[in-house]
Amino acid sequence: MSVLSRINFRIIFHLMGLLFMVNGGFMLLSALVSLLYEDGVFTEMIYAALVAIFAGGIIMLATRNHRKEIQKKEGYIVVTFGWIFMALVGTLPYVFTGAIPSFTNAFFETMSGYTTTGASILNDIEIIPKGVLFWRSITHWIGGMGIIVLAIAILPLLGIGGMQLFAAEAPGPGGDKLHPRITDTAKRLWLIYVGYTLAETLLLWIAGMSFFDAINHSLSTLSTGGFSTKNASVAYWNSQPIIQYIIIVFMFLAGTNFVLSYFAFKTKFQKILKDEEFKLYVSFIVGLTLVAALFIYIYANHEMAAIQDPMVLGPLEYAFRHGLFQVLAIVTTTGFVSADFTTWTPFLTIFFFGLMFLGGSAGSTAGGIKVVRHLIMIKNGILEFKRTLHPNAILPVRYNNKAVQQPIVFNVLAFFILYMLSFIVGVLVFSLLGLNFETSLGGAASTLGNVGPALGDLGPVQNYSGLPPAAKWWSSFLMLIGRLELFTVLILFTPFFWRNR
Amino acid sequence: MSVLSRINFRIIFHLMGLLFMVNGGFMLLSALVSLLYEDGVFTEMIYAALVAIFAGGIIMLATRNHRKEIQKKEGYIVVTFGWIFMALVGTLPYVFTGAIPSFTNAFFETMSGYTTTGASILNDIEIIPKGVLFWRSITHWIGGMGIIVLAIAILPLLGIGGMQLFAAEAPGPGGDKLHPRITDTAKRLWLIYVGYTLAETLLLWIAGMSFFDAINHSLSTLSTGGFSTKNASVAYWNSQPIIQYIIIVFMFLAGTNFVLSYFAFKTKFQKILKDEEFKLYVSFIVGLTLVAALFIYIYANHEMAAIQDPMVLGPLEYAFRHGLFQVLAIVTTTGFVSADFTTWTPFLTIFFFGLMFLGGSAGSTAGGIKVVRHLIMIKNGILEFKRTLHPNAILPVRYNNKAVQQPIVFNVLAFFILYMLSFIVGVLVFSLLGLNFETSLGGAASTLGNVGPALGDLGPVQNYSGLPPAAKWWSSFLMLIGRLELFTVLILFTPFFWRNR
Repeated sequence: MSVLSRINFRIIFHLMGLLFMVNGGFMLLSALVSLLYEDGVFTEMIYAALVAIFAGGIIMLATRNHRKEIQKKEGYIVVTFGWIFMALVGTLPYVFTGAIPSFTNAFFETMSGYTTTGASILNDIEIIPKGVLFWRSITHWIGGMGIIVLAIAILPLLGIGGMQLFAAEAPGPGGDKLHPRITDTAKRLWLIYVGYTLAETLLLWIAGMSFFDAINHSLSTLSTGGFSTKNASVAYWNSQPIIQYIIIVFMFLAGTNFVLSYFAFKTKFQKILKDEEFKLYVSFIVGLTLVAALFIYIYANHEMAAIQDPMVLGPLEYAFRHGLFQVLAIVTTTGFVSADFTTWTPFLTIFFFGLMFLGGSAGSTAGGIKVVRHLIMIKNGILEFKRTLHPNAILPVRYNNKAVQQPIVFNVLAFFILYMLSFIVGVLVFSLLGLNFETSLGGAASTLGNVGPALGDLGPVQNYSGLPPAAKWWSSFLMLIGRLELFTVLILFTPFFWRNR
Repeated sequence: MSVLSRINFRIIFHLMGLLFMVNGGFMLLSALVSLLYEDGVFTEMIYAALVAIFAGGIIMLATRNHRKEIQKKEGYIVVTFGWIFMALVGTLPYVFTGAIPSFTNAFFETMSGYTTTGASILNDIEIIPKGVLFWRSITHWIGGMGIIVLAIAILPLLGIGGMQLFAAEAPGPGGDKLHPRITDTAKRLWLIYVGYTLAETLLLWIAGMSFFDAINHSLSTLSTGGFSTKNASVAYWNSQPIIQYIIIVFMFLAGTNFVLSYFAFKTKFQKILKDEEFKLYVSFIVGLTLVAALFIYIYANHEMAAIQDPMVLGPLEYAFRHGLFQVLAIVTTTGFVSADFTTWTPFLTIFFFGLMFLGGSAGSTAGGIKVVRHLIMIKNGILEFKRTLHPNAILPVRYNNKAVQQPIVFNVLAFFILYMLSFIVGVLVFSLLGLNFETSLGGAASTLGNVGPALGDLGPVQNYSGLPPAAKWWSSFLMLIGRLELFTVLILFTPFFWRNR
């Protein structure tokens, strides 16, 4: 345990204090929303903000004499505990306002927020004070910002599952030092993130959403979160297809590597069109949408009868829109719901369940396994057939015209296996806690992939409130490890991490 | 397509002819059973045998001028088409006797036999003539013999998924030439296989089974097949625990690498105790049995009420026996049923579903992913965490005190990914064909892993007769690719296989 003395706990706590203060700042903003909309919880929101800021301030003061440099091992601890501490402090507005009195529920909702999962324990979202709802959407948005830094700047340095692959493409001065890279790259990509959020808000507002709903849904979309301000989620706007199409566009952008958006603004379109992950991401969406739309079209009449969903622009458009919307919602792991995909036909239930294992692009805010990993696995799989025939040939995987180093391919394969193992353990534990077959499978896939809606009792028109408390904590754990690319968290459970050298 | 002219089709057909004749020989043996038990289908069985023998003879004569040597590419074709042709000719006794009039059903049953899956389309097994039942069990047994040769001698040379690992340990003169190795190794292991079969038959007979049931269940056990002569499978003998314990012992042996049995007879026990796959195999069984038995014990009263299963030796023994029996039946992919594991408690349904992805030891007759591959994946997974911390360290996977070559580790990881992909495609197709959620998942896991019983409509007390015809063909395909370690069959679907060089 002598490594504990070598770990720079001061800087770790210092950074946690900083996170508290940043969160407190956003709580102040949410309090402002409370004031503006006169939702009656302004005082409680202010209290929550002050507690967060003061606690953060005290921690920062107490740890101000810290060494500046962060070691690799401390990186894993900072990232993992960063998310856990945020989920802890993030419960304050829920608990103080009484919107979510149970701590278990409040922690679940906050973890679901910061991990951009979007699973909710709220039975009636529409009675929650507006300031609290805004805070709820903000947790998504902060989580999304964190993920962008993580994906572009931190995870590649920590050597996590193939994240080195596209990080090489990231804008910025390069080099291996943590600090300059974070600030420079993050600034550019955050600017795009903020810009997209403002653009979507404006468009949704123009299209007929209230300003409050518009900003909340934008915060949820860009972070691929999925919290909605309506009980029916985006199905609330089923009679206004234009709103759903706007969300579709921004879900697509949120699931795309933000570095590509940066290239787009620099008008380097060739770089985008040549990007193999982007090509596969688009192909997935096009192909999967065609399949989904076909089946929805066939079963559309049944659906209309079941949920009184008006086919505003005819059944073809209806099938196309819901197909595209739900494919994007699941693949980008946003988890918005435009229609209950488990009621169309059993095949589509299995289909969307399978999509939970895809994930969006690396370098986006999407969770899941991610397209680039599938691409590496597909390419390596094909090569494995060739290697079987020609055992002496050296056949490296090529990605974006470069040979991928073997350790990275190894890392990607090991990531997938660890993901499946986590999924299986996830299912078994859910099942032990009393969840049924479909709910266990869907719940594990959805929380691990940070999707949100699952199957069975956790289906698109249900929520997570009925879970036993232990299952809520287990869900929170799965959301956390899924969001942080498994290795970052799970490495803390290995004995050799805590051994010296 | 010029490669087609280079492939030695003559020898391929010659071998198919030989297979026909061997099958015909075993049909003659089954006809003898018909004669002995006067089941009224002796003539039809003789016809089936004669057709197989004559067809085989004509093919062999027509292709007698063949080059002797077999190329690697021809190896894949011989193995794949060997199983398909056997499943074709094996339908003759079913069709000729009218026991299974539909060709789709007969093909399914034969493929299930040769792949040692044990899934059946028979609604009432007990009305089938004894000669035909014997033939049904024999298909398992031939399949098992084929698998032993395949695993020990052929697949390693074809470079399939880590099979090189334990093949190095196989007895025999060694060397890379196909022919001497096959004959020498196969002879030794077949002897053990035959010996075990006779021993189990004798023991079951002494324990109180009829001789006919004893021989049939032995043929099914050693091949890890699972066809029974009773509608209730081994649950028929629930009031005679000794019979179930005998089957337990032989299921365990059938799921163990036969090379280890060979060492046992040579009294080289140290080699067995040092074998890492064997240790993990035993640990899996012990650990999983404890879990299963605990839950069965808790839910045992419910079970007793549900199926009137007498607790002959008290509830503790009952829970232990059924736990051990079902764990072994699923892990070794035998698929015998001592009790309906889907009725105990939802957790055990998920539990046994998960076990379908384990598989027995390599070099046994068991199907599935196999213990050695899990071992390599676990070891590599742990190393991957270490590699993450120390990216410059060279950390090879070690198996039985030797460093495993990287291409083999790669091959194992790729195998697992291909297995999961096949599973997902399997589920999607089943679902498209109208099967429900649980049935699709269970059916794909069970057929791909050559287990037999699945979930839902294909549960332990159900059978495959209700499937739509297309789903039966799809099941047959999954059984085939699962049995032949995926690559062997799927490589034939790659365009580069058919290209020159």
